[in-house]
Parts: sequence; C-alpha cells; structure tokens
Amino acid sequence: MEELDRQEILDDVSYLIEAKQAPKLRAIMLDAYPADIADLLSHMEGEHRDYLFAALDPSIAADVILEVDESTREELIEGWDENRLAALVREMNSDDAADFVIELSPELAAKVLKLIEPEDSAEVRQLLAHEEDTAGGIMALELVAMAQDSTVEEAINEIRKKADEIETINHVYVIDENRRLVGIVPLKKLLLAEAYTPLSAIMNRDVISVLVGTDQEEVAKLARKYDLLSVPVVDAQGRLVGRITYDDIVDVMQEEVAEDISHMAGIASHGDIRDAHESSVLRTARLRLPWLVIGLFGGIVAAWILSFFESRLQQNIMVLMFFVPVVMAMGGNAGIQSSTIVVHGLATGSIGLGDMLQRLLREMRVAFLNGFLCGLLLLLIVTIGWRQPHFGALVGTSLLIVMFVAAVVGATVPLLLKRFDVDPAIATGPFITISNDILGLFIYMGISTMYFLYLRP
Amino acid sequence: MEELDRQEILDDVSYLIEAKQAPKLRAIMLDAYPADIADLLSHMEGEHRDYLFAALDPSIAADVILEVDESTREELIEGWDENRLAALVREMNSDDAADFVIELSPELAAKVLKLIEPEDSAEVRQLLAHEEDTAGGIMALELVAMAQDSTVEEAINEIRKKADEIETINHVYVIDENRRLVGIVPLKKLLLAEAYTPLSAIMNRDVISVLVGTDQEEVAKLARKYDLLSVPVVDAQGRLVGRITYDDIVDVMQEEVAEDISHMAGIASHGDIRDAHESSVLRTARLRLPWLVIGLFGGIVAAWILSFFESRLQQNIMVLMFFVPVVMAMGGNAGIQSSTIVVHGLATGSIGLGDMLQRLLREMRVAFLNGFLCGLLLLLIVTIGWRQPHFGALVGTSLLIVMFVAAVVGATVPLLLKRFDVDPAIATGPFITISNDILGLFIYMGISTMYFLYLRP
Repeated sequence: MEELDRQEILDDVSYLIEAKQAPKLRAIMLDAYPADIADLLSHMEGEHRDYLFAALDPSIAADVILEVDESTREELIEGWDENRLAALVREMNSDDAADFVIELSPELAAKVLKLIEPEDSAEVRQLLAHEEDTAGGIMALELVAMAQDSTVEEAINEIRKKADEIETINHVYVIDENRRLVGIVPLKKLLLAEAYTPLSAIMNRDVISVLVGTDQEEVAKLARKYDLLSVPVVDAQGRLVGRITYDDIVDVMQEEVAEDISHMAGIASHGDIRDAHESSVLRTARLRLPWLVIGLFGGIVAAWILSFFESRLQQNIMVLMFFVPVVMAMGGNAGIQSSTIVVHGLATGSIGLGDMLQRLLREMRVAFLNGFLCGLLLLLIVTIGWRQPHFGALVGTSLLIVMFVAAVVGATVPLLLKRFDVDPAIATGPFITISNDILGLFIYMGISTMYFLYLRP
Repeated sequence: MEELDRQEILDDVSYLIEAKQAPKLRAIMLDAYPADIADLLSHMEGEHRDYLFAALDPSIAADVILEVDESTREELIEGWDENRLAALVREMNSDDAADFVIELSPELAAKVLKLIEPEDSAEVRQLLAHEEDTAGGIMALELVAMAQDSTVEEAINEIRKKADEIETINHVYVIDENRRLVGIVPLKKLLLAEAYTPLSAIMNRDVISVLVGTDQEEVAKLARKYDLLSVPVVDAQGRLVGRITYDDIVDVMQEEVAEDISHMAGIASHGDIRDAHESSVLRTARLRLPWLVIGLFGGIVAAWILSFFESRLQQNIMVLMFFVPVVMAMGGNAGIQSSTIVVHGLATGSIGLGDMLQRLLREMRVAFLNGFLCGLLLLLIVTIGWRQPHFGALVGTSLLIVMFVAAVVGATVPLLLKRFDVDPAIATGPFITISNDILGLFIYMGISTMYFLYLRP
C-alpha cells in the first residue's frame, strides 16, 4: 500500500471507529485483502486498533492475525480468553492453527485445543509434533487425495466437498490402498479430461515429494529447481501425510535469506532482521551484542599482538602502525568476498562438495591476482607519498600475502563447515572477518619483524 | 540430485554415449526433469556433453537450455547456425524465447526470428521492447483471456485449445470489449461451476495487476504480500498484455537476494554471485577489484590520519595505536548492523519513509546501549590487563562515541539514499564500513589528542 493511500484510508477508518460504526467497518473490510488490513493495523495503536480488529468478520480476522507482525499479534490478542482465541483458530487451516497455537502459553494452548472440533485439534497436535523447520513443521493436512481407480468426476465431487475448507487447490494427489502417494493430477488435466476417465490414466507418476523430516531449506530448493507450486509430504513408508503450499515455500525462502543476511551482518539471530521494526530496543540490543563482544575480544587480541611486537620493533613501529588498518581491512574484504560466494553457492546448490578443490583453487587464483594488484598499488603510493620504497615493498608484499591467506580461509572454512554438516552461513559474518583480522595482523607484524631484524638495508 | 546418484547416472550416461546410443538416451531423458538433465550437462564436458544435448528431443532440449547456467548454455550452442537455434526457439514460450534470443548476437537473433512463425517472432519482438527488469520484461504473452459473457464451458474449451502451448494455467482472465482486465477466475471455480454459468458470475473482480513498466522487485513484493501464483500485467489503459508466472516471480526474488548479498560482500555486481561458479578467474577478479581498491584508499587515508596525529602525540601514540584496530573494527560492526537492518527493512517494505525519524531514534538507542556495554568492557580490560585506568577510560569513551556515530551513519545513509531514489543496498557494503573506519579513526585520535594535550592527569 502506498504511503499516501494508507494515510487517507487510516483517516477514514479512524472516523468510522470514533463514530462506533462496527458493522460498516466489517462490511468494508470484507472486500479488503487481509494483507492490507494487517498493514493498516500495524500503523494503528491502542483502542482504535483493538476496535477495528474486533469489528472484523471472524474468518477475515483469522487471516489478518496470521499476516500481522509478531509484536502486533501479541498485542492484539493480549488478555484474550480461550473462547475468543478458539473462535479465531476454528477459521484457520491446520498448519496456520498449529503456528498460531504454538505461540500461546502451554496452558492457554491446551484450553483452546479443547474448545475446537476434536478432529481439528487432533490435526493441530499431529502437526505440533514435527520440528518447526522441517517439511512436517510447515505442511498443511488439508488436501485432496483420491484412489487410483477413482474417476475424474469423483475427484471433482471431492474437490467440491472440500472447496470451503481448502483455499488453494492446484493438484489432486493419487494414493494406493496403503495411502502411498503414487501420482499427481494438475487441475488443468482434470478440467480437460472426460468425466469417467480413471485418475490412473491421466496422472503424472513421477511425483516429487519430500519426507516429513526434510529440512525446510531443502524443500524450498526443490520447489525452486522443479518450479513446483506445492510439494507433497510423505512419511518413511511413502504414505501421503500433507502438502506444503506456495505461500509457505516463499516464506521459507525469505526466512532463509533473512538468516543469511543476519549472519553476514553479525546479528546473532535472524529474529532481529525479522522483528527489528517492532521488538524492543533492549531485545534488539541483546540480539546484536554477542558479535560485538566477540569483535571486541578480537580487537583486544590485536592490541595484544601489537604490544607483543613492540619491544622487537621499537624504532620502526610507528610507520608500521600506520598501515595496520589497511592490511587488516583488506584481509577482511578479500576474505568476506570469497566466503560470501562460497556460502551462497553452497546454499543455492550451485557448488557441491565434489567441487571443493576446484572451487578453492579458483578463489586462490582470484585472490592472488587482486592481492598482487592491490599490493603493487600500495607499494607505489607508499613510495611516492611517504618516500619509503623499501617500506612500500614490505607493506605491499604483506598485503598480497594477507589477502591471499584471507581468501583461502574465507573459501575453506565454509566448505569445511559444510563437510561436517554445520551451516556454512556462519562463515560469512564477523567470525571470518575477525579471524582474518588477527591472522592478517600476525602475518604483517611477523613479516615486518623479520624484515627489520634480518633484512633491513 | 544427490552427489552419489549423480555420479552413478553420469557413468551410465557416459556408457551410452560411448556406445553411440542416441535413441536410448533420448528415451531415458524424456522421463527426466529438465532441471536434472541440466544438472547432468553442467557436470559433463566436451564431446560427451554435446552428444547428450544433441540426442535430446527438441522440446526437452528447449527446456534444458533454459535451465543450464549461462556459461554452459554459451558452450552448448556455440557455433550453432540459425536453423538449429530456431528449432529450439520454436519450442519455447514467448518470455523464454525473448530471454534466449537477447543473448545471441544481433545478426544471429535477427536470422533466428525470421525463421520462426511470424506470429511468434512478433511476440518476441514485442517482449524485447520492454526493459529487462520490469514486469514487461519478465511477463509471458501466453494466457487464457475470455469475454465477460463467455460461459464456463467456453472457457474450458479455450483452455483445451491452448493446453499444449501454455504449460501452467491457474487462472482464466476476464476482459471487456476493449481488452481491459475486469476479473479473474481460478481453475478451481471453473471446475466447480455449471457449464452454462457466465464467467462474470463467478469471477473475482478485485484483481491485483501490475503495469508493464513496474519494477520486477515491486512485482515480487506484491506476489509475496498477496500470495499470488501469477500476476497479470496491464498497459496504461488497463488492457491485459501478459502474465508473470510463479517460476519467474521466484527467480526475481532470488535475483534480488543475490544482488543484496553482493552489495554486502562488496562485490561490484551480482553477476559475480550468479556466475562465480562458471566465469573466468580474470572476470571474477575484475568484478571484485573495485571495492578492494576503494578499501585500499580508505586504509591509506587512515594511515595518513595516523601520521598526521603522530607529531601531536609522539610519546603517547604507541599505546593508542594498539587500540586502533579495536575502535575501527567495532565502529564497522555497529554500522553494518544498523545499515543491514534498515536496508533489509526498506527492501521488504517493512520500513517506509514515514518511519524514518522513529527508525533512526531506535537505532541510536540500540547503538548507545551496546556502545556503552562494549566501552565499559574495554575500560575494564585495559584497566586490569594493561593497568592503565585513565587510558582505559579514554579508549572506552572513544569506543562508545565511535559505535554510536557509526550506527547513526549506518541507519541514516540508506534512508537518505532511499529518499533520493538511489538503491539503499549500496549502503550495506564496504562503502559504509570504510566511511565508518575513517570517521572512527578521526574521532578516536581527536579525543585522544584533546585528552593528552589538555586533560592528562
């Protein structure tokens, strides 16, 4: 919604709220998209917001509460009893209901589940049993599954029966007598086939499905690779247990991105990037502090390294010191470039573990080339600007070596992490920068010490 | 495809290639997903690869050539004449054909367009007229559009007629006599309605559409907000001209992410992150060099600042120097945290320009809090470790101020860039880090100079 539109609508809505025109508000909101209503609510406060939310039709309210951000959600339902909450949950799909209920206190959640239909609460409980970031944790149980010998007409009747309950239907799943997934029929095929055709005659037998325990990132990768609108989920015996829909796949993609970016920016949890616009200053500060403290200790180690070399380099250290920032920063830059490319490649699947050595060699060549150019440039600048050609050669050579080592570390660490099944994304953040800072400082000061002690002209 | 599976399949395929079993290969590949064949090809080389690709059924080959990475594509069709290329293009949708043709040399492209159906080449030419990163540039022209008074039966017949040409159909678009988009009917509704129902009775009138000139990032944002499977594209008069499908929307999301991550990592173009796994070392090095050189000059400015303060601080500079890396690195960290959150918020739309001041105040409070804690920690460490409480207070205070200023810069720059319609993402990268490094150094050395000149106990 555009800035200006929103302000106009907010004014109109506020007017209706102050006039206590709940029925009129409800009627207007029936025609609006839940995402737009959520947007409005997040720009309102206090009683006005509560009044508008209470005025909504229950089915709309259920959609809206799922669209608003976490802190608005918490505020909207604060103090609600189980009856009001159950009225919302009744309107939700199984997967949304599970996501909603899990955020409540355990006691309240139990009370709400007792109030809704036993069948629905059994479904929610079943979903809650899965890990949050697996296929089982994001799937919905609502789907249309038919036996192989069912006809197109029977499938259409089944869809008609479930049309209210299931918002988006793009496929009919075909199962055998043991509920094992054996085929899939897109709606288009159903529409074009004769009424009496058995589904087995038109179904696609080569179905791409995932196991309940499959990591959600893997699900998103598959969906993207094969352009899938929804992904069926099966258990270890191949039985169909749910499906993951388009909107949830897109959410996972976005979540993974937020996570990667958080790692890069040195924010402890992607909760910050997701909620930064709502959660408290204190909470945000706490999420960002860990990397800062680690960075601080990295810097203190750097200070210690410098003071350690001081005694050996007393007379010459001044001019060396001036270039500590250059060498450190450039090592950090080269390292982050390599690690980002490798981590992104691993995340999108464009680099496999089989390509490790080839990949590493490639990064080494790139880093050598750029290190050589930057080192040469620094040599020239120090020679011309500071009139110290020997020192220019020293610091230029150090720069080349530091950038080269940093790139090797930047490319190797994520590959090793991946090999040992740790998320390589942690290598894009300050972790790799700090390691490279310290390593770079050691290399620079070490080379300088040797130069001044043994090689000085 | 898993590593091990792939190796096994590669072995089998190589065997068939050496036995010159083209018909058998073609038959096997008819059952495979194009994405998997593309995956195989990217792990093959030279004659084997060319043999497999040439053995593919033309319709499969067209899908595969669109799935492989850029450099594999270039190698596969290298030296092809217009006849072979036209045979591929004939099998493509309009949007894919346009994307494919634009990569050819202008002469070759013109020859290919002359060889395909005049109607198809007119479509491709029409698509090529749009900017690449707009809705017009990513839309396809294939769609099902019906008049308002058409019946469900007529719509189904139209879908039947176009079923071969259009791979995925999820909606029928409803247009008025001037081709203006007035409604949309999901396939589910079509399936459940009686044959003689007019579309106007079941269509959804509140259609979300985009203009041909809409930025592709905006399209992806809308699709995500409203969970759209496809987005209709209209011209300035509201006439339906195309539709953007799910797979292209997901591609845009991924492209935008790659772009953001490139900016953060200081890689000049997201071409690097997209192609890093294929393009030459030289090209990659060239893409990464600009930020490195800018970083280098930033470091040289830092060296110059240090040497400038040297004369004023002769005796005390040693111990000050040890903490230059800490202060610079921490300023960089705090700045990148703030800027990342703000840039990501602006990109996803969760921060609007209206929230600017509020946003800035929030980042200031977070930075002050964390700066205070980190400063205090540094004071304690310097007091205990170096036994210099006065100096600890000096460097601790400097750290607080530097982190605070860095966060303000980190949050302000992207907001200002956005205000002046420049992509705020450039503020997540080394640009902000380097500015903060230099600013931090000035603050630290400035405070230290004042302290040692005027306040020293």
